Amino acid sequence: MSGTFEALWAEIAPIGRAEDGGYFRYALTEPDLVLRDWFRVQAHDRDMAVTDDGNGNLFAWWGAAWGRGAVVTGSHFDSVPHGGGYDGPLGIVSAFLAVDRLRARGIQPARPLAVAAFVEEEGGRFGVPCLGSRLLTGAIDADRAAALTDRDGVSFAEALGARPAGELPNFSGRVSAMVELHIEQGRALAGPVGVASAIWPHGRWRFDFTGDGDHAGTTRMTDRHDPMLTFAYTVLAANKEARLAGALATMARVAVTPNATNAIPSLVRGWLDARAADTPTLDALVEAVVKRAVDRAGRDGTQVVVEPESASPEVTFDATLAGRLAALLGGTPQLPTGAGHDAGVLSAHVPTAMLFVRNPSGVSHAPAERADDDDCAAGVEALATVLEDLL
Amino acid sequence: MSGTFEALWAEIAPIGRAEDGGYFRYALTEPDLVLRDWFRVQAHDRDMAVTDDGNGNLFAWWGAAWGRGAVVTGSHFDSVPHGGGYDGPLGIVSAFLAVDRLRARGIQPARPLAVAAFVEEEGGRFGVPCLGSRLLTGAIDADRAAALTDRDGVSFAEALGARPAGELPNFSGRVSAMVELHIEQGRALAGPVGVASAIWPHGRWRFDFTGDGDHAGTTRMTDRHDPMLTFAYTVLAANKEARLAGALATMARVAVTPNATNAIPSLVRGWLDARAADTPTLDALVEAVVKRAVDRAGRDGTQVVVEPESASPEVTFDATLAGRLAALLGGTPQLPTGAGHDAGVLSAHVPTAMLFVRNPSGVSHAPAERADDDDCAAGVEALATVLEDLL
Repeated sequence: MSGTFEALWAEIAPIGRAEDGGYFRYALTEPDLVLRDWFRVQAHDRDMAVTDDGNGNLFAWWGAAWGRGAVVTGSHFDSVPHGGGYDGPLGIVSAFLAVDRLRARGIQPARPLAVAAFVEEEGGRFGVPCLGSRLLTGAIDADRAAALTDRDGVSFAEALGARPAGELPNFSGRVSAMVELHIEQGRALAGPVGVASAIWPHGRWRFDFTGDGDHAGTTRMTDRHDPMLTFAYTVLAANKEARLAGALATMARVAVTPNATNAIPSLVRGWLDARAADTPTLDALVEAVVKRAVDRAGRDGTQVVVEPESASPEVTFDATLAGRLAALLGGTPQLPTGAGHDAGVLSAHVPTAMLFVRNPSGVSHAPAERADDDDCAAGVEALATVLEDLL
Repeated sequence: MSGTFEALWAEIAPIGRAEDGGYFRYALTEPDLVLRDWFRVQAHDRDMAVTDDGNGNLFAWWGAAWGRGAVVTGSHFDSVPHGGGYDGPLGIVSAFLAVDRLRARGIQPARPLAVAAFVEEEGGRFGVPCLGSRLLTGAIDADRAAALTDRDGVSFAEALGARPAGELPNFSGRVSAMVELHIEQGRALAGPVGVASAIWPHGRWRFDFTGDGDHAGTTRMTDRHDPMLTFAYTVLAANKEARLAGALATMARVAVTPNATNAIPSLVRGWLDARAADTPTLDALVEAVVKRAVDRAGRDGTQVVVEPESASPEVTFDATLAGRLAALLGGTPQLPTGAGHDAGVLSAHVPTAMLFVRNPSGVSHAPAERADDDDCAAGVEALATVLEDLL
């Protein structure tokens, strides 16, 4: 096996893509299952045995599975709804191609190498991002993960076909390093490749705004307790508070009951995504948004209950490893990111690094997300160089 | 046939009711089809032949179908999502019971009487309220109605099983009067029954707010073009403008693309329901809301396109008929309403009146909507009295 990036990429590009170019690759749905089959075929073609950790994460092994000092690389297949095609799969395709490069160079690794496909990284189906890597490392309770449901009420355990296995015994003792290659998600790179320095702390909070459902045509404005107003105010308040804090806040998902044109809602459920460069700033931001929501609810005669759905603490990647990679790649820049990754979860347990591939538009989580083929090929070379050193 | 209100009401109360008491009786879905079967059984039990006008509206006849000078009474079965059980069905159940009262009194009508069940009054499934009565009277083009789709992409023609027949020839020449009994939807009645004087002009406008889909974790606040912000501002602006105008404005339905926690939306679609005591006030209100939405879109770097989805002009019910009914009922009060009704559509073609039954909570379009059994029985008596006079 030694195909070009373009050829391998073309195999998966159509999977889960809507007519307008947006991707719908929810974890463990049809497109994701097709991608997982593709993963197994790629592994088979390279004589790499595939293991499943019982949580839905797949590992294709060059060398003994979970052998001492293993190096793990890879990323995830799942997308946000109507997302881009690079966020995730680029790291898996690049990993298989890096294996090809190393073999073409006649490398005989001293340690096992795993190409990994982590499940439900986006949290797009079951609400908790990096669910697979959290399970693998025991960062989420297996029973809690099993009971998470998608929008149709299907549980993670049902989708997986079994209760997830949970923490892999002695994961940190078995793995010497983890490197995830990923498309960059802003426009921070001047060259084709960069090294991650840190991930901003971030999380998701669910706001349940409740009021009095009633008829939109017969209820006087002064008699209303309309939770849509409290939600709308909170959307604007979150935006303003994030700007003041130099942080990020987004309310991009909403579910309304009953969501009828002529019926004042009884419930508006909105989700806050918030991120900041450090934890105190993030905590203060969320506190400010919640306070403004509660104040407004008092004025609207509505109620608001806030439930944290996921929290991802600040990640500072292993500085020694990042410096070593940056030096290996000829002094490539190091940069922080606001996006969460499985590498961020794993970094609490094993030395972890990330490589970013340039994103010319800076767009991500949307159909316009893309990377140039030349940059992707440069990403493969960089990953191969890094893995050769680590192995 | 001569059952009590309670007995007949109990037959339909469970149909389409969710566990928490809310009703989901979308037009031509399973619960509505069950109710339509129930209608046919009720008609059969009373030796009333049922005709269908080819638009989904049912008519149970005492006397010759569409005979000269016919009197029509009835209402609709469909509900808003998670609505109440009275809005609509009360008028149909009361109509059958009024027939029983008239027969018990030995009345021999000089004109035919139809008990009607109009289809898709709420517009909850296909978006256009009073779709059945609009089709019957030619107020909406049959091809346009046929092509309306529900949230799953099913067209009205598919749900109906045929292209709708459209305007019934010489409807206004055949019908001498229409009386719709309906639960009142505010708390405007001190006694059990009232007579409608007018329906406020009202309509629905769809606002498509578009922006740039992107990653919530990596896109700087200053680089965003987030249509959720424009939507949220418009929700608050509509509320404020309605208060200033002494009118009603509600944005209670929203659809977000992609509606993911970590993806800035590319599209937020929101619906405005607006109503006012007169047309100039309504027009000025909508114009003010649109202007504020457009201004804000300019500041957010988003776009907004506004599409009128339905317009219901001001209805002033036949004053002579309303006065006659109020006098017959012992000087019962006359009152206007902000809610649209099939009677409002029909009033442009035939002398039309409405009877309202007291609503103790004032709640409508929500599970808490209800009327006392005694008031419902009084409504049946009032309707029988009125029909006896008209027949």
